[in-house]
Amino acid sequence: MKIAAFSVEADRHIGIVQNDGVIISLSALRETEFPACIKTFIERSEELRPLAEQLIGQHENEQARFTLSDVKILAPIPNPEKIICVGLNYMDHCKETGMEPPASPVIFSKYANAISGHNEAVKIPVNSNEVDFEAELAVVIGKEAKCVTEEEAMDFVFGYTILNDISARDQQFSDGQWARGKTADTFAPTGPFVVTHDEVGDPHNLDISLKLNGSLMQDSNTTQLIFTVPKIISFLSQSMTLKPGDIIATGTPPGVGMGRNPKIWLKKGDRMDVTIEKIGTLSNYVED
Amino acid sequence: MKIAAFSVEADRHIGIVQNDGVIISLSALRETEFPACIKTFIERSEELRPLAEQLIGQHENEQARFTLSDVKILAPIPNPEKIICVGLNYMDHCKETGMEPPASPVIFSKYANAISGHNEAVKIPVNSNEVDFEAELAVVIGKEAKCVTEEEAMDFVFGYTILNDISARDQQFSDGQWARGKTADTFAPTGPFVVTHDEVGDPHNLDISLKLNGSLMQDSNTTQLIFTVPKIISFLSQSMTLKPGDIIATGTPPGVGMGRNPKIWLKKGDRMDVTIEKIGTLSNYVED
Repeated sequence: MKIAAFSVEADRHIGIVQNDGVIISLSALRETEFPACIKTFIERSEELRPLAEQLIGQHENEQARFTLSDVKILAPIPNPEKIICVGLNYMDHCKETGMEPPASPVIFSKYANAISGHNEAVKIPVNSNEVDFEAELAVVIGKEAKCVTEEEAMDFVFGYTILNDISARDQQFSDGQWARGKTADTFAPTGPFVVTHDEVGDPHNLDISLKLNGSLMQDSNTTQLIFTVPKIISFLSQSMTLKPGDIIATGTPPGVGMGRNPKIWLKKGDRMDVTIEKIGTLSNYVED
Repeated sequence: MKIAAFSVEADRHIGIVQNDGVIISLSALRETEFPACIKTFIERSEELRPLAEQLIGQHENEQARFTLSDVKILAPIPNPEKIICVGLNYMDHCKETGMEPPASPVIFSKYANAISGHNEAVKIPVNSNEVDFEAELAVVIGKEAKCVTEEEAMDFVFGYTILNDISARDQQFSDGQWARGKTADTFAPTGPFVVTHDEVGDPHNLDISLKLNGSLMQDSNTTQLIFTVPKIISFLSQSMTLKPGDIIATGTPPGVGMGRNPKIWLKKGDRMDVTIEKIGTLSNYVED
């Protein structure tokens, strides 16, 4: 199941994306059960997911049927409690840079202010001249998880989306702590959809790529992940309670702008397309 | 004005704390205007603060009058979008350790999962043996702030509270990035109240101290702040939009456990009391 948050004129919806480019609005079918919020859908998914499947199977309501190209796709979860990011988590990236793989996941954070949606602008902040891109597979947590084992961890995954981990490299490295350079407004484009774990299957065998203005910059596969999805979830849950709607970005493969010679920094008018197999393509453009 | 979130049996309230140890529940006086949420009060403070002052001045409703000792004080803002922390921000702390003051504020983050309230437990996570305390003055943002100057910055302050920046030192330093070691569940005790900026006055001349089991461990004054409150707000707002209810912890003075010989780590049964002049005392105990 592919779930989208979208708007039509001033109305917000959540809906199920079909293979034929049609999106069925759950909010239009049953507004009381399906408020326009994917986080609420996830929190109540034991009850709402079967209802959604049933409604989609029998829908005859033309009012609830939209064409993807006619709606504005919104960031799927604009208000997660946590956006947790894992640094340096692709083996091919470590090999490329000659770095030793880390002994345990390197964790940093973004706040919800950084969230932006598909086809929305990434804005270069006034205090940075070195803004970079990072294609990442993002896990969406489905249920509260605290001190779970790796064996249990996948039960707490609702699904997956794409996150482009936009980074002000000048701030990231001059500060030492990465927080500020990672969480400027619009620095966490996510989407376009949340795809449920059963539809994605194994998250460790997905092609992942990023094109900048149509040129392939990052091109790898999640087989290269050093710390797997269950390892990361178990590791984090030893410290913090993961909550429904939390987003965990799993790291980026080689090919980012700072690793190139000459380095490439984002500039006004640039277009980024991040594609992950079975999930979709997240597109954003750059504004000053 | 001192604002508290509290509960009486199963009911949540917000209220105004009087000097005589009485708390007047705004939720009990006018539930529709005053939902039990200080963040909502802040977001609507232009309208609600005058109403609160008027109601407090004329209250005759005994149902709304509680004694502080009879209620459970709750964390004032359990769901901030951001808990932003400033590292190494006291001049006396730099002198003590021989470190150069940083050229710009060092920023790191906690998530809302870390929030705990006055008299609640700080829990040592299963994956740390070196948990430490840090007394901090915390700013509570009152209005959306983006790219504001230092001169404008104080207009965006709603008030102040206390934050005890609990830190797993082993994780903080082995990870390099501080996020994980700073945001375990219960690692951000805050409260007991939010005191409005007009009642506090200058935030740069407040005694700040922490007692561990009754012994004075930290004892300084916010005159020692390297980066002032308006400087921090302006600095952060160049990157990110600050929102009503956001909490900014301004750093800690000398005397934390890791700076001692021998080092002192928190253990089960320990009691911490952080006192800041004009704001109050935040007390917490330690559980395994």
